[in-house]
Amino acid sequence: MKKLINDPKNVVEEMVEGYVNAHPDYIRQLPENNRSLVSVRETKKDKVGILIGGGSGHEPAFMGYVGEGMADGVAVGNIFASPSPQPILEVTKAIDKGAGVVYLYGNYAGDVMNFGMAAEMADMEEDIEVGAALASDDVASAPVDEKEKRRGIAGEFFVYKAAGAAADFGYKLEEVVRIAEKANENTRSMGVGLTPCYLPQTNEPSFLIDEDEMEIGLGHHGEPGIEKGKLETADRVADRLVEDILNDMDLEKGDEVAVLVNGLGSTPKMDLYIIYRRVDQILKEQGIKIYRSYVGNYITSLEMGGCSITLMKLDDELTKTVDHAVDCPMFVQK
Amino acid sequence: MKKLINDPKNVVEEMVEGYVNAHPDYIRQLPENNRSLVSVRETKKDKVGILIGGGSGHEPAFMGYVGEGMADGVAVGNIFASPSPQPILEVTKAIDKGAGVVYLYGNYAGDVMNFGMAAEMADMEEDIEVGAALASDDVASAPVDEKEKRRGIAGEFFVYKAAGAAADFGYKLEEVVRIAEKANENTRSMGVGLTPCYLPQTNEPSFLIDEDEMEIGLGHHGEPGIEKGKLETADRVADRLVEDILNDMDLEKGDEVAVLVNGLGSTPKMDLYIIYRRVDQILKEQGIKIYRSYVGNYITSLEMGGCSITLMKLDDELTKTVDHAVDCPMFVQK
Repeated sequence: MKKLINDPKNVVEEMVEGYVNAHPDYIRQLPENNRSLVSVRETKKDKVGILIGGGSGHEPAFMGYVGEGMADGVAVGNIFASPSPQPILEVTKAIDKGAGVVYLYGNYAGDVMNFGMAAEMADMEEDIEVGAALASDDVASAPVDEKEKRRGIAGEFFVYKAAGAAADFGYKLEEVVRIAEKANENTRSMGVGLTPCYLPQTNEPSFLIDEDEMEIGLGHHGEPGIEKGKLETADRVADRLVEDILNDMDLEKGDEVAVLVNGLGSTPKMDLYIIYRRVDQILKEQGIKIYRSYVGNYITSLEMGGCSITLMKLDDELTKTVDHAVDCPMFVQK
Repeated sequence: MKKLINDPKNVVEEMVEGYVNAHPDYIRQLPENNRSLVSVRETKKDKVGILIGGGSGHEPAFMGYVGEGMADGVAVGNIFASPSPQPILEVTKAIDKGAGVVYLYGNYAGDVMNFGMAAEMADMEEDIEVGAALASDDVASAPVDEKEKRRGIAGEFFVYKAAGAAADFGYKLEEVVRIAEKANENTRSMGVGLTPCYLPQTNEPSFLIDEDEMEIGLGHHGEPGIEKGKLETADRVADRLVEDILNDMDLEKGDEVAVLVNGLGSTPKMDLYIIYRRVDQILKEQGIKIYRSYVGNYITSLEMGGCSITLMKLDDELTKTVDHAVDCPMFVQK
C-alpha cells in the first residue's frame, strides 16, 4: 500500500506534530509528554475532566475529539496500540480541576490495563478522583449476555458525546460516568470489512480477504468477524447489519435513535449515504424514529474499506447530550 | 474495486436520497427536479443566492456545502459529469430572492457550457440576474499566463467560503462575484495521485499507475499530471508541491495564507497531517504566516489515493470570509 509518510517509525510523532501545528487555537502538547494533548481552553473549575485515548490510526479518533463539548485531553498510543500509563497520567493531572476526571476508552485488554494503571497512579500519587466508562458496542464480538466482553467500535463516538455534554452540564463525576455508561448500554454497532488496512511499519494487510468477499462483524484492527461471504449489494449489507443490531437491542415502535454510519477509511461518502438510505428505510418501516444522523469517517482504521452502522436508543437525557454543541478540530456540531 | 452500492446506474439517485433523508433539518430536494437541492433555511430577502454544483463523486463537494454560510443550493450531476442546465435553472429560481444568484463551479468544459446555458435561461425566461465565478486553482493544468485554462480542484472550497460569506454580509451581486474571483485569483493548488478511483458503472481505474509510482499534478478525474515518478517520502512530496505553488504566486515574507491539505478519498488523515507538518515547516521557514488550516477530505474523487495542497493568499477582506461561520451537513465551522 502506498502511503504519504516519511520513516514508518515516526508516523505518530509526525502526525501529532502536524495536528498540533494545524490547530493551535484548539490543542497543545503537554511539555511533560508529547503523547499528551489537551485543549487550549482550560477545563473550567469544578467541571469534570474528560480524557479519551487509544491507539493511533483511527483518526479522527481519538485526538480529533478534543475540544469544547467533547474531551478535555487525549493520550495518544502507537498505531493500534494503547497509550502507556504515563501520558494518560499527565493528561489527568493537566485537566483535573478539582472535580475529578473520567476516562473513556474502548474495551481492549491493553487499554483496560493501561488506563487502569493510570487511574491508580492518579489516585495514589496525585489524589485525583478518576472514573471510567468503557465502550463495548460491537455486537459481533461476543453474545449479548457477555456484553462486558464486547469490543468498542464506532459507538464510542456516542459515549464521548454523552460524557462530554454531561460534564459541560456541570454534573458530578458519578453522574458523568452513569450517563456515559448508559450511552454505551443503549448503543449497538455492526461492521463490515471489504479491504484491509496496512500498518506503516510492516506494510502488511491487517487481514486477508478475496477480491469478491466481505467480512461481517470485522473489528477495527482486523479482528476476525463472524462470517465471510460474497460481497452483496449495499441494501443487503445494510439489511444484515441492522438486523443483527435490532435483534440485540430493545427497540420498539415509537422509540427514537441516533444513527451513525461510519466509514472505516477508504470507503467514499457516496457509499456511506447509499448505506444510510437503506438504514433509514428499515427503521421507518419498523416505526423507529431517527432523531439525528451522522454519516462519515468518525472512527477509522487507516485505509480500511467498509463501514459500520451504530444505533443509540435515546431517552430525554441522552437526547440532550446528542444535541449538545461541539467544537473540535475534526468534528464540529452547532 | 469493491463498492457498497446497489445498481451502479442508481448510485447518484440513491446517494442523494440517503443524504436528504439523513439531514432533513438542512437540505431538501425540489419537487421539480430530484437533482436540485436547496437549503431548508430559505434565502433571506435581498441576499444574493449562492449556487454550486458539478459532477458527483467528489463528496463532500458539492452537495455537502449547502447550508448557512456557504451555498443556498446545489445542482447535482452524474459521476464526474456536469449537471444539465435544467436542475441548475430550478435551483436558481428557488434561491433567487430579488438580489440575483451567483454560480460557482470549476473550470471544466461541460460545467462552463451547462452553467452558461442555465444562466441564459434564468435571464431570458425568468428575468433573474446571474453572475458567475469559476475556480481555476490547479497550477499543474496550464501555465500561469493561461490561468483561464486551468482546472478547478480543491481550491474551489475557498471560493465557496468567500462567496458564501460575502453574500451573508449583504453584498450585492457584483461584489460577491468580485470577492469570489479574488479568492480564486489568490488561490493555488497542486495535487499528487497515488492510486486511481473506480467509476461505479465500469469499475475501471481512472488512471494507470505502477505499484511504486506517484503522479504529480494529477487532476480530480484522473486527468494526466505533469510528471510521473517513484513515490517519495511525504516531506519530499510536500516540498515539491509547495515549491510549484510558491513559484506560481506572489507571496512575500509576512504575508498571510489559508492552507488546505485535501485528501482525495482513501488517504488516511494520518498521512494528511504528516504532509501538513512539512507544509507548515516550509512556510514558517519562508516567513509566511498560516492564518487558518483545513486538513481532511474536502473535495474528493471517490476512493482515489493522494492529496492536494492549496494556499490562498489573504487580505483583510478574504480573512473575514475565511473566519465566517458555516453550518452545512458535511462541514461546520464555528
